[in-house]
Amino acid sequence: MAKNIFYAQSGGVTAVINATACGVIETARKSRQVGKVLAGKNGIIGALREELIDTSKESAKAIAGLRHTPSGAFGSCRYKLKSLEENAAEYRRLIDVFRAHDIGYFFYNGGGDSQDTAHKVSQLSTTMGHPITCIGIPKTVDNDLPITDTCPGFGSVAKYVAVSTREAGLDVASMAESSTKVFVLEVMGRHAGWIAAAGGLARDSSSAPPHVILFPEIAFEEKAFLAKVKATVDKVGYCVIVASEGAQYADGRFLADAGMKDAFGHTQLGGVAPTLVDMIKAEHGYKCHWSVADYLQRAARHIASATDVEQAYAVGKAAVAFALEGKNAVMPVIQRKRSKPYRWDIGEAPLGKVANVEKMMPRSFISKDGFGITARAREYLSPLIQGEDYPPYRDGLPQYVRLKNQLVRKKLPAFKSA
Amino acid sequence: MAKNIFYAQSGGVTAVINATACGVIETARKSRQVGKVLAGKNGIIGALREELIDTSKESAKAIAGLRHTPSGAFGSCRYKLKSLEENAAEYRRLIDVFRAHDIGYFFYNGGGDSQDTAHKVSQLSTTMGHPITCIGIPKTVDNDLPITDTCPGFGSVAKYVAVSTREAGLDVASMAESSTKVFVLEVMGRHAGWIAAAGGLARDSSSAPPHVILFPEIAFEEKAFLAKVKATVDKVGYCVIVASEGAQYADGRFLADAGMKDAFGHTQLGGVAPTLVDMIKAEHGYKCHWSVADYLQRAARHIASATDVEQAYAVGKAAVAFALEGKNAVMPVIQRKRSKPYRWDIGEAPLGKVANVEKMMPRSFISKDGFGITARAREYLSPLIQGEDYPPYRDGLPQYVRLKNQLVRKKLPAFKSA
Repeated sequence: MAKNIFYAQSGGVTAVINATACGVIETARKSRQVGKVLAGKNGIIGALREELIDTSKESAKAIAGLRHTPSGAFGSCRYKLKSLEENAAEYRRLIDVFRAHDIGYFFYNGGGDSQDTAHKVSQLSTTMGHPITCIGIPKTVDNDLPITDTCPGFGSVAKYVAVSTREAGLDVASMAESSTKVFVLEVMGRHAGWIAAAGGLARDSSSAPPHVILFPEIAFEEKAFLAKVKATVDKVGYCVIVASEGAQYADGRFLADAGMKDAFGHTQLGGVAPTLVDMIKAEHGYKCHWSVADYLQRAARHIASATDVEQAYAVGKAAVAFALEGKNAVMPVIQRKRSKPYRWDIGEAPLGKVANVEKMMPRSFISKDGFGITARAREYLSPLIQGEDYPPYRDGLPQYVRLKNQLVRKKLPAFKSA
Repeated sequence: MAKNIFYAQSGGVTAVINATACGVIETARKSRQVGKVLAGKNGIIGALREELIDTSKESAKAIAGLRHTPSGAFGSCRYKLKSLEENAAEYRRLIDVFRAHDIGYFFYNGGGDSQDTAHKVSQLSTTMGHPITCIGIPKTVDNDLPITDTCPGFGSVAKYVAVSTREAGLDVASMAESSTKVFVLEVMGRHAGWIAAAGGLARDSSSAPPHVILFPEIAFEEKAFLAKVKATVDKVGYCVIVASEGAQYADGRFLADAGMKDAFGHTQLGGVAPTLVDMIKAEHGYKCHWSVADYLQRAARHIASATDVEQAYAVGKAAVAFALEGKNAVMPVIQRKRSKPYRWDIGEAPLGKVANVEKMMPRSFISKDGFGITARAREYLSPLIQGEDYPPYRDGLPQYVRLKNQLVRKKLPAFKSA
């Protein structure tokens, strides 16, 4: 009998992770070699709790709708399996659940940690007597997985940030003569500046915004920063700043943790943007505005990159194809053939080479003064935001699908730890 | 000889104020009864400084592009003319500049203060011996002008906030089991809750987000708010909050001014969202995320409401038509004929009735518990966000026009005060 696929979404969700789910399910439905796709309710937690969503209960239309629906339709989680030494019971539980539900394929859709888990499961399942084909599927707005040209989810955040920077930049430009002179947009990227760098794509002339980008990779120096802001206002009339939430001092302290206290002396959640604005106001007295994009940026399916949507779907489709070809412990990756025009196809990487490797942004992508991106960065980033892929609208709002998410009947006793 | 039109953009810009400029210029170009459209560089400041942009130097294509370009293409300003008693010289200067440049029409595109200025100029010009036809053109994301059904600029902010709330809501829903349980989106509206109310349009079922809306109109009570958040998390699993920047305590203190201090004891720019998150974390310990939309919301031409764009263009077109019909001291308004389907046309209001009247949100638009919107609010708001009107894209980014903004040669000596 054809084995079922277990599919789980892991970690922070994106505008296109459901497009990957769509690719997995639509491709699996076309094959007689695989059974059902069972999705973990809230990710891997669903496997541990034996809460498996039967995607065969969803209509073809609902599954097609996943392609244009942001966030994780089955629920995701921030739950990292401990090492085998620390908690072998969790791994045994996974195998038990897989065995009980005829699951022969484990598809884990996530970032670096998830690829590591998928790798471990692939190694263990054989010794535990229930061999599982493990396929990792890349997903992360952080764009930090190795080998793959980019990570599905990143292109859409990049597009959102570039579009928003251009738009807010026009706003400040038209107000600057008598009002706001500085605007700060805070974006995600705790460890790497990929997302902040994407803001640089908005710049289409030497005086156009953004004028300053703050990367986690470049130690923040208040004096140089304030001088750059003033020089920009003096020259251009205003200054637009894109700041990574991971911007930090040379000693590793995050600007966002600058020690704000409320009236009662409690530490207040920071935010890089208000911290920067405070500095600028104190030093230069400019009127400032600031924005923190937070979840809006990674949920913004309404302005997703068509390239990103296509790639997200393609890695889902490839996961099924790889499994059917008998591949194991691999992850589909995006291979860049050329940049202009952008040509890519799907390749594969062994999970062992993906797990625990973080792809950092090359220093050559950051301008010499540390406040901008280089032509090389632009060449890399620009193709990733190409194309629009608008969702359908009703009554002025995007029509995102909501699945039934019907659970398979449980067969095992409850598991204690999850 | 046909008199010229002076057109100025005033106050905070919007995603569609340039669509109004497009309506004015395209309509004026078709008529032989009017001369050129001269635009104030940075709004009314441009008139005082005799910095007049000659829009006849722009191509038809560039002017057409204004329809899809956000912010103020000629620059705007926050500059309110003093009263006649305080500064008659400013009014005299306006008349001098208008006379020197054969300007017979004054079009002022802005909110309440601007309509008041247009009204005053219309009264003065006759006594000063250079009669000017004054037409106010409505614009404000605050939606607080009287008589008109809505204000161009508001519908697009409303759409942005509704779309963003829906998208971020899906994100939180998929993470809530093991991670973020509360998300706060801070939106504009210092005096009225129109924009916050628009977030309520995202809600399409009784359990769907947003679960809490904070309006400036409803005194903030921390205890009731925290209880509502907990009840929502207990029932739905997560809680999405849309908070107006104008949210305030019963004594009028803004939540945003809650007295945050940095490490040096300086008062820190607040933000309602981080303040609320701080409260929620302290009381319930939930993991929270927050976003401040700020300029992004009013600059977001990429997701503008088609209805709003159409209305913005229509009031610009009507301004010229009114002027040619010999009307004076009036403002084109949007008249709602019916809500479902939305039918509207253009009417007129005397500036004397528009100036200094603020349209507040009716209490009947806010639910009894003060945390949501009613069916009446929905009926009013929903038509205003209908339709998408996407700008053209190149290389993954919206192609917004940049005008030449060539100034007319000055004819007068410099004016001291501006």
